[in-house]
Amino acid sequence: MKRLTDAQVTIVGLGLMGGSLAGALRGQCWAVVGVARRAETIETALARGLIDRGTTDLADGVREADVVVLATPVRVIMRQLHEIAPLLPEGCLLMDLGSTKSQIVAEMARLPDHVQPLGGHPMCGKEVSGVEAADPAIYRGCTFILTPLPRTSEAALALGRELAEAVGASPLVLEAERQDFLVATVSHLPYLLACALVATADATTSADPAAWEIVAGGFRDTSRVAGSDVTMMVDILLTNRAEILKALDVYQAQLRSLTRLVEAGDEEEMRDVLSTIRAKRKEMFP
Amino acid sequence: MKRLTDAQVTIVGLGLMGGSLAGALRGQCWAVVGVARRAETIETALARGLIDRGTTDLADGVREADVVVLATPVRVIMRQLHEIAPLLPEGCLLMDLGSTKSQIVAEMARLPDHVQPLGGHPMCGKEVSGVEAADPAIYRGCTFILTPLPRTSEAALALGRELAEAVGASPLVLEAERQDFLVATVSHLPYLLACALVATADATTSADPAAWEIVAGGFRDTSRVAGSDVTMMVDILLTNRAEILKALDVYQAQLRSLTRLVEAGDEEEMRDVLSTIRAKRKEMFP
Repeated sequence: MKRLTDAQVTIVGLGLMGGSLAGALRGQCWAVVGVARRAETIETALARGLIDRGTTDLADGVREADVVVLATPVRVIMRQLHEIAPLLPEGCLLMDLGSTKSQIVAEMARLPDHVQPLGGHPMCGKEVSGVEAADPAIYRGCTFILTPLPRTSEAALALGRELAEAVGASPLVLEAERQDFLVATVSHLPYLLACALVATADATTSADPAAWEIVAGGFRDTSRVAGSDVTMMVDILLTNRAEILKALDVYQAQLRSLTRLVEAGDEEEMRDVLSTIRAKRKEMFP
Repeated sequence: MKRLTDAQVTIVGLGLMGGSLAGALRGQCWAVVGVARRAETIETALARGLIDRGTTDLADGVREADVVVLATPVRVIMRQLHEIAPLLPEGCLLMDLGSTKSQIVAEMARLPDHVQPLGGHPMCGKEVSGVEAADPAIYRGCTFILTPLPRTSEAALALGRELAEAVGASPLVLEAERQDFLVATVSHLPYLLACALVATADATTSADPAAWEIVAGGFRDTSRVAGSDVTMMVDILLTNRAEILKALDVYQAQLRSLTRLVEAGDEEEMRDVLSTIRAKRKEMFP
């Protein structure tokens, strides 16, 4: 298996995540090839210097690749894996950037033997989408989860790690089920809470024009991820449903308990509960 | 009534909000006097150049004031109003920075006639507290809610506006009940949601050391306000209870509806609902 510096890396999907990865890898490998459905996306990626070469023809884009990274929504990845695998050269590393991993890894297990599959999930993003929003810096300092399969070779995993490090991220190897449990709470749950907050404000205060003059940093930050790309989020909700519903269940119980705390109005109890939570938040983000 | 440039402004409470206000006002009025319980707070405020003069003696601090601003927690404000009023010179503007206004304005209505009361609530803050954290810049660009009473003179309200503008904020006059309804949803509700999110992570994922390596911007932002000052928040929850419980009720219904959406797994419906929410978020923060 080649080192990253000698590898042709093909990125399928040049949206925020794929376009940013392409830009961050460019110059660190032999060539970065971009595949997108629309010719204009390729043009923009070329004009922005994110890729060395681009094509709208998937087969053409992956045929000589040493590494292929699928940067499309989760359910598209699950379909593309099987479409692409037969076209790949022997020993090609086939990765993805999907936010949920169990279902993708299950599909990867069914790929032909000449392919080296490796699940990937970089813990970064922005509430903007498309190649115009691509920003190679988003990977810097983030954790890049890697979910290898039993069949994934040491060399393929090492190349995956090298790729994560090349874009400034820290690779972290996790089992797919464990990653799905964790991201349900630390990533997918915050999205749903933010959505419910926006829907609440829309149902009540937003009829008052003053509401938008007084909205402060608290609402802005707490609701930020409600602006996430809907296609990506629908795929996430559909492919990590069980873990997300479990996280929602725990969350709703915690919120009911805080509601009772407000109803009861017991100052000492409030102070205890809220101080403990504040201390935990500080532990999480020192 | 004096103009701000000729006024002595006394700020009672030199924590994050009071200390920052003092620093932002200094040089824009005749003198900024700080009142704090602890001598060390005064020393720090002087050393940091936030005040012209400081005292731990409330009576001494307010006796010659043209404007007094109470920057203490809401229930302390409600007590201090009555303690301070008899000490104030004729026509003195007595303001506060409390986050809930109905109960404060009710107390203000009972003040002796020689005082000009005006409720205030600047929509800014940080998840740090104390004079060490004071930062005059936090008022810049924020909305500064003013809740005058029927008895508040035009001149007193004008001076309150002048003060808000002097620190870089935009004054917005609202009735106290309307402000309490609005901030319950745009400020107090996000705090409780953030607390429930931290408690959920603590109850489930935080047992896994990988959780804190993968926690991304979404969780960080959505949970940020859970780090707010507990004494301030307890007072807010106790003095805006009815409006906060109403907001929690609407929010819980919205979250149940999103939970059903995830359970049902109907892609088209998900896309519709989440796209509408995303568009609303974009409307709120263009």
